[in-house]
Amino acid sequence: MMRILERAILPSGFEANGISSGIKKKAKLDLAVFYSQVPARASCQFTTNKILAAPIIVCKKYLKVNKSYQAIIVNSGNANCFTGSVGLKDAEDMTRYVGESLGIDRKKVLVASTGIIGQRLPIDKIKKALPILIKGLSRNGVDKAKQAIMTTDTFSKEITAKFNIGKNVVTLCGIAKGAGMIAPNLTYPQRSRRATLLGFIFTDAKISQVTLDKALEVAVANSFNCIAIDGCMSTNDSIFVLANGTSGNALINTKKNFRPFVRALNLVCLKLAKMIVKDAEGATKFIRIKVRNAKSFEEAKFVALSIANSNLFKTTMYGENPNFGRIVAAVGASGIDIKQKELKLKVSPLSKRNINIDVSINRGNSSAVIYTSDLTPEYVKINAEYN
Amino acid sequence: MMRILERAILPSGFEANGISSGIKKKAKLDLAVFYSQVPARASCQFTTNKILAAPIIVCKKYLKVNKSYQAIIVNSGNANCFTGSVGLKDAEDMTRYVGESLGIDRKKVLVASTGIIGQRLPIDKIKKALPILIKGLSRNGVDKAKQAIMTTDTFSKEITAKFNIGKNVVTLCGIAKGAGMIAPNLTYPQRSRRATLLGFIFTDAKISQVTLDKALEVAVANSFNCIAIDGCMSTNDSIFVLANGTSGNALINTKKNFRPFVRALNLVCLKLAKMIVKDAEGATKFIRIKVRNAKSFEEAKFVALSIANSNLFKTTMYGENPNFGRIVAAVGASGIDIKQKELKLKVSPLSKRNINIDVSINRGNSSAVIYTSDLTPEYVKINAEYN
Repeated sequence: MMRILERAILPSGFEANGISSGIKKKAKLDLAVFYSQVPARASCQFTTNKILAAPIIVCKKYLKVNKSYQAIIVNSGNANCFTGSVGLKDAEDMTRYVGESLGIDRKKVLVASTGIIGQRLPIDKIKKALPILIKGLSRNGVDKAKQAIMTTDTFSKEITAKFNIGKNVVTLCGIAKGAGMIAPNLTYPQRSRRATLLGFIFTDAKISQVTLDKALEVAVANSFNCIAIDGCMSTNDSIFVLANGTSGNALINTKKNFRPFVRALNLVCLKLAKMIVKDAEGATKFIRIKVRNAKSFEEAKFVALSIANSNLFKTTMYGENPNFGRIVAAVGASGIDIKQKELKLKVSPLSKRNINIDVSINRGNSSAVIYTSDLTPEYVKINAEYN
Repeated sequence: MMRILERAILPSGFEANGISSGIKKKAKLDLAVFYSQVPARASCQFTTNKILAAPIIVCKKYLKVNKSYQAIIVNSGNANCFTGSVGLKDAEDMTRYVGESLGIDRKKVLVASTGIIGQRLPIDKIKKALPILIKGLSRNGVDKAKQAIMTTDTFSKEITAKFNIGKNVVTLCGIAKGAGMIAPNLTYPQRSRRATLLGFIFTDAKISQVTLDKALEVAVANSFNCIAIDGCMSTNDSIFVLANGTSGNALINTKKNFRPFVRALNLVCLKLAKMIVKDAEGATKFIRIKVRNAKSFEEAKFVALSIANSNLFKTTMYGENPNFGRIVAAVGASGIDIKQKELKLKVSPLSKRNINIDVSINRGNSSAVIYTSDLTPEYVKINAEYN
């Protein structure tokens, strides 16, 4: 059995903290750290945007040369992207300062940023704040950490799953941020795409590296990669899992104990992904689009995304305006060869906050579900003013 | 030399008219006819949306079996799309009624519709209005016709070019409608895409069929296919050229007299395309995006469209907010392998109505220009309420 808690409870051996370092204009929390008391395995998924933020370039470098990790340093308010070689140095310095404070190698520290693109990080402010941030590490510090990673988010996204491997209780805790610039890449066909958000998942499970990587890939493909808010793929999207093995469970690998772990990870990722859509910038609707009877999952997903990313569809949902021709036009615009008379639509009442769209295309037996939001004047306002 | 007039003046041998038939809720003009007194060659380009409106299916059928045409019947207020076999019959009936009134074969009559998708055309109202519409045909009737094709347009798009072939003056007159649901398809690589609007071009030039087809293809690729308002490809986009040969010029073919004709057609198409962007639903900005130093025109265009179709870019333009990181993110999201340090941006002052974005990607020698608009609360409002 699995137990779900609608808040973040760090697994054994993990600590966190959040602080206001002065990156954001108002004195809001903007710097978070997550720490594992013992070296942990890491698995990560990053954006496929061709312009990568500096922290992602640094993480990719560390992930090549290192096998275990103990901390993740995260700032909000500045994406440290399109900042050239000085941005790379700033991202490395963030890991170096954390490493020095914690007495660990900087390459055991991963790093993430979110916020405005193209401006240099105020690295001195971060350097100054870091000792205090590290000093305040605690299990309950996760409550500050989850605030410190937010940008336009109006609530924190958090969930904890507990399940058994034999007699050992394993905990999986996920927190995420994201409310705009949310979209998997629409190119088709291709392999599953990285999600467009920051997500941090912590577990005390003992698990092999290969198994952790595989489980995360599957979970992301069916959760974060199945949401679309504004069709804009970020340069900074990153998902991290740290597994520190302190629960003492029998090793999880692809042959043993795999299923309960995967089930919990899938659930944690899907719940976080849905929370992101529920907090979509300016949104008034939570829309579930299911495309059925496609030739493949990828095809079904592609058609669903073609609908989800149509501004005309999104405004129709906002207006509670049953102009379903826009769904038809979006399906046709996907370029997939769908016969008009074989296209079937079902739409639940538009006056509700939760809307279900069911599209059947009579080409095969596969289906996919995408979660999206409406497009509102408030979305335009938020993004016209964001800087 | 070419003479440009900023209004529609029909070439010799053409007549038109517009009427209110009751398709639109208010007593607005909603039915237009264009007529050539002598049989004319036709060249057409249609949407590549996989869901085709009934009038396009009917036109494609007629274009296969017939060599000359004398009329185009157009209604606004209803797209006659996703209307099944009854919709096909309605579109054919429109051509039949016009043919009967004019005393010509229905297959010499082309047809176009624009408006809401998925509702049956009020064919009886159209049938009733047609004799009066036809009876009122005149050269000046184009002023009513250009009003009758509009939907959310706030002004009519019209232009006339006059140029010489030897001693003969040839006239090219274009009118168009379109203010939303405007986007070429983003899939890449592929051949040039059809435009998403209705466009009608009339000329008294004498021109071979092959030459007319080729000239239109090139002109559309560089005009209507280089604009993007909301990234939504319509099911009804159609561009028609009728050439009736009454100017008496020496035949235009790919070897003789080609250049002046192509120059005029390119200019007419580009002017109309820009007018559509200037009338973009709710827009406050007219934005020109030039991508330079790409490997090919298609690559440059693809990067430019990736920017033009980004909601975050569009809201930034609306907000006059110099958050140029969103341009960077959109370039990277195109999936084209662009090096961060080789990406150069120039943006003209955002406080102006006309904005120029210049992007250089250091991959080759090709460039492309795309015209687009900003995303505003008014766009959302217009489309939330449209039905």
